[in-house]
Amino acid sequence: MDRTFFRWKQQRLNKLDVSKKGSVDRDIEHVVSLLNGRDEYFTTSSCSGRIILIDGAPESSDVQKQNCVWLFVSHRTCTADDLMSPVAKSNGDAVFKFEPFVLHVQCRRLEDAQLMHSVAINSGFRNSGLSISKTGKIITAVRSTHGLEVPLTHKGKLLVGHEYIHFLTQVANQKMEENLRRIQRFYQNLQSALTVATLQKGPPTSQEPQDPSDSLDTETERKDKQSVYKGRRRRGQPQAECCHDDSSSSLQDLDDCLNLFT
Amino acid sequence: MDRTFFRWKQQRLNKLDVSKKGSVDRDIEHVVSLLNGRDEYFTTSSCSGRIILIDGAPESSDVQKQNCVWLFVSHRTCTADDLMSPVAKSNGDAVFKFEPFVLHVQCRRLEDAQLMHSVAINSGFRNSGLSISKTGKIITAVRSTHGLEVPLTHKGKLLVGHEYIHFLTQVANQKMEENLRRIQRFYQNLQSALTVATLQKGPPTSQEPQDPSDSLDTETERKDKQSVYKGRRRRGQPQAECCHDDSSSSLQDLDDCLNLFT
Repeated sequence: MDRTFFRWKQQRLNKLDVSKKGSVDRDIEHVVSLLNGRDEYFTTSSCSGRIILIDGAPESSDVQKQNCVWLFVSHRTCTADDLMSPVAKSNGDAVFKFEPFVLHVQCRRLEDAQLMHSVAINSGFRNSGLSISKTGKIITAVRSTHGLEVPLTHKGKLLVGHEYIHFLTQVANQKMEENLRRIQRFYQNLQSALTVATLQKGPPTSQEPQDPSDSLDTETERKDKQSVYKGRRRRGQPQAECCHDDSSSSLQDLDDCLNLFT
Repeated sequence: MDRTFFRWKQQRLNKLDVSKKGSVDRDIEHVVSLLNGRDEYFTTSSCSGRIILIDGAPESSDVQKQNCVWLFVSHRTCTADDLMSPVAKSNGDAVFKFEPFVLHVQCRRLEDAQLMHSVAINSGFRNSGLSISKTGKIITAVRSTHGLEVPLTHKGKLLVGHEYIHFLTQVANQKMEENLRRIQRFYQNLQSALTVATLQKGPPTSQEPQDPSDSLDTETERKDKQSVYKGRRRRGQPQAECCHDDSSSSLQDLDDCLNLFT
């Protein structure tokens, strides 16, 4: 199993980046580097978060997104003026979107995927989840609920005023900044979790530390590490928003999930 | 493990529904019933999909959603007129949202969760994923990418015209209808997958069919069942939209995932 994983990883790292952009976004290079530098993980796709304007055929659903024209893409904050010229090019139904950070990480073992998922939830990425293929590929998707999707034109005609577009870019920019804070939180939580996991389980080669005094894994220091998760737990608590909801059980489930390291 | 699962299920089914609404939404009663009637599953929360208008404090992020005022909620299509009176009550920043079907299903074994995940992806719910707690609770979340999130007021002031709200409700209604089609597709795919799984693996009590001729699991019929998944596969194929994307590998991953039953 391990040999298969390393072969997959090797194949992945030797491949060309086939995305539109062709490279990892600058704001998440450190995250991708950290993961690809570990024996337990490699990334298969990522986006740091972006503000986009896409023009689709009227009445088409988002399933046909591949037929859309991309009028504007920014991985940073933007202004209303940045959008006015692209939006004027719309012939169909243009939709303004903020799409937050998304990351797909292939994981060596199920426990590695659980660690990644737990860190993601604790860092505010509440729509994260695992998938397991029949060939044994285990992938954790890190996803946020933190989006924005606003129709701006219909059949090429602008439906809102300049003032609204100005307000919209402010909202999107705030979401972009919150998104970057969450990425940083995710990176820090991930570093801590990987350090604790390495110390608790030994390195991937199963070598034990030569001298117990070399290990940071004292009771006090472990508690310090754990507090990263305990402190963050409340951010991820589900709210009783669902229509049919066993919230007390959901809270417990999440606590169980978030306490993977305790 | 099985005894623990059944105890969890019993506890869940004996509990009050603590959601705002207090009951399962009508459009997904058949889905929830199907799942709770199986030994491998029970649902912990669900929403059939809804159009909502929530009023939040200006500059607050969605993390503070619990402090928002709910101005409007509908689990069916709506009109601009339905919204005008609620939107007039906004004092802060009101946001119009379409939130699609979401379902959390606790699963007995990992393979049960994989089946659920595969059916979800094949039915168009591309943001679905598993979580596994340290106590062994395995939950599949069925989630769509199919949302809408539109700021409508700032500090109580309406930012758009009545015509825009009319268009917005039309877009939301289309998404609601597509959402209901996906729920139906999910229900049908789930029924087929559960039938195939039961026939292939025998019932949960591990009794084999008494007579092989009783079984539908002939080569031709198996192919018929599988075609449900094969036919749907293209809907869920990821598009090369990510900034760093190993699309060929992602496609393969998804195929692996979607081919769980082949």
